[in-house]
Amino acid sequence: MQADPLPSWDDGKSKQNILTFVNEVTSDSHPSYVPPEERIATFDNDGTLWAEKPIDCQVMFIFSRVFELEKEHPDWQGIQPFKAVLRNDTKYLENLGNPKFECQLKDLILATYSGMHQGVFQELVSTFLINTEHPRFKVKYTEVVYQPMLELLDFLRGNDFKLFICTGGGVDFVRAFSESVYGIPRENVIGASVKYEFLETDNVIFRKMEINSKNDNKSKPENIQLHIGRIPVIAVGNSDGDLQMLKYTDAGKGPSLKVLLHHDDAEREYDYDKGTKEAIRVAKEQNWTIVSIKDDFKRVFPFEKERN
Amino acid sequence: MQADPLPSWDDGKSKQNILTFVNEVTSDSHPSYVPPEERIATFDNDGTLWAEKPIDCQVMFIFSRVFELEKEHPDWQGIQPFKAVLRNDTKYLENLGNPKFECQLKDLILATYSGMHQGVFQELVSTFLINTEHPRFKVKYTEVVYQPMLELLDFLRGNDFKLFICTGGGVDFVRAFSESVYGIPRENVIGASVKYEFLETDNVIFRKMEINSKNDNKSKPENIQLHIGRIPVIAVGNSDGDLQMLKYTDAGKGPSLKVLLHHDDAEREYDYDKGTKEAIRVAKEQNWTIVSIKDDFKRVFPFEKERN
Repeated sequence: MQADPLPSWDDGKSKQNILTFVNEVTSDSHPSYVPPEERIATFDNDGTLWAEKPIDCQVMFIFSRVFELEKEHPDWQGIQPFKAVLRNDTKYLENLGNPKFECQLKDLILATYSGMHQGVFQELVSTFLINTEHPRFKVKYTEVVYQPMLELLDFLRGNDFKLFICTGGGVDFVRAFSESVYGIPRENVIGASVKYEFLETDNVIFRKMEINSKNDNKSKPENIQLHIGRIPVIAVGNSDGDLQMLKYTDAGKGPSLKVLLHHDDAEREYDYDKGTKEAIRVAKEQNWTIVSIKDDFKRVFPFEKERN
Repeated sequence: MQADPLPSWDDGKSKQNILTFVNEVTSDSHPSYVPPEERIATFDNDGTLWAEKPIDCQVMFIFSRVFELEKEHPDWQGIQPFKAVLRNDTKYLENLGNPKFECQLKDLILATYSGMHQGVFQELVSTFLINTEHPRFKVKYTEVVYQPMLELLDFLRGNDFKLFICTGGGVDFVRAFSESVYGIPRENVIGASVKYEFLETDNVIFRKMEINSKNDNKSKPENIQLHIGRIPVIAVGNSDGDLQMLKYTDAGKGPSLKVLLHHDDAEREYDYDKGTKEAIRVAKEQNWTIVSIKDDFKRVFPFEKERN
């Protein structure tokens, strides 16, 4: 008798899909067999591996950086979107997701994520992660990760899958905790990035005030090709920004598993479908695996007890 | 008594440097100890892992593609640099390395490496590699690899190093043989790249007529940051294009090993220093490990017998 590799998953269709798929692609006599070198699994991060509500960790980071940097930039009191951050103008800030405000969002990201040596940025992120609590759960953000997803990562790793994060979050932000929290090494994180410049004066990397990649939507499969060079066999996401990655995985030659996490549990986590409707529509239409937090997760977070 | 992990290396200073370094960084009681997750080793490919003379494999590929594509492009008979390729005008072609001809070289690369689906390109490369012999050694290019370097890769892998190729050659070209020849998986190849576009019509990657990165000189450390997110502990190269990668490795916080392969053996391989002089000068000045093919390699290629 084998121990259940996914104890925090309810014994429903989602868990069964995952177990069956992994069993088939790893059985060398099965027609769906996939050799280990091709066992690539890509995971979105925000809202897929950890909670992104009520405010994403990286948005918190940006805000805290704006407050820190304000001393050096007194003019920010009069310049948007910095002014809105400093005055906690939530109404204004909500607009930043709107394409019309793309430049302002970019200004905010570049002002807080770049213009410094790589080593300095890494220190800033590490310090921030140690000192910042999730506003609702009152634990570090790095603890607000989904227990069933941690089990899925372990299960896949045990079956010789190579695990990658493919996130619209900053690659170097996520790398600061990917190893300790997910067991995913830094080199297996693909994410949004600024341009780097190698400074020959002191042989270090400088983070330029320029976006290299947003790593969302179409750029997810593009960066998967750049970084991995193979089409994933498993892709896991939760939003419209993951749709192209899921479609790309689906279009691969062999068998594939597409998993979409659906946030439908206001009690234990959050219930929202903003930015996820198209993904859910396609997932239903294509018969992909839709994981309901409410129905499929016995336990949501490691710090939480299993429900009865 | 342990078997010699580097049997094709002469028992000189270079071999001793490598053995000592690896022994120290993997001994957890040694002050130079490096934990496994930080054991990153990056290798250049052309002239470091395989021979690049008298003509680099990828240049052969470009030329063969020009001949194949000429039917669809009769105008190439009158347009440089295609004309020079079609007429084997070696004098003209030698100029293409000159910065003044950068645009022509780019035209040649884009015409042969891009403007097609990713899957089509991979097939072209695989077919080419099967059918193409090295002009001097009369074996496939993928056999003209340095036996001592294969042993070094195995030795480092056995000591929990993570091995990466960081090449100015095309990333998807090198990925076609990195696993079978070097045991280095596709996702651990960093190289020159064209821009990719995800086509939503059929969910595949298209290779655009645009350079993304040349991955030489300064862009080697920049792409190491993008792809790996860590400073290497070991870097191995052979030319001025590897110098920034070597300097970046040298500037890391902990211990590091910088290896420069010197081509000084016209009899068994080639003897040249074009494009390598500055690297050799710095390596000598900084006391890096300079590996002489003539003196340090007992055997150069797997198909060759060990010398007496």
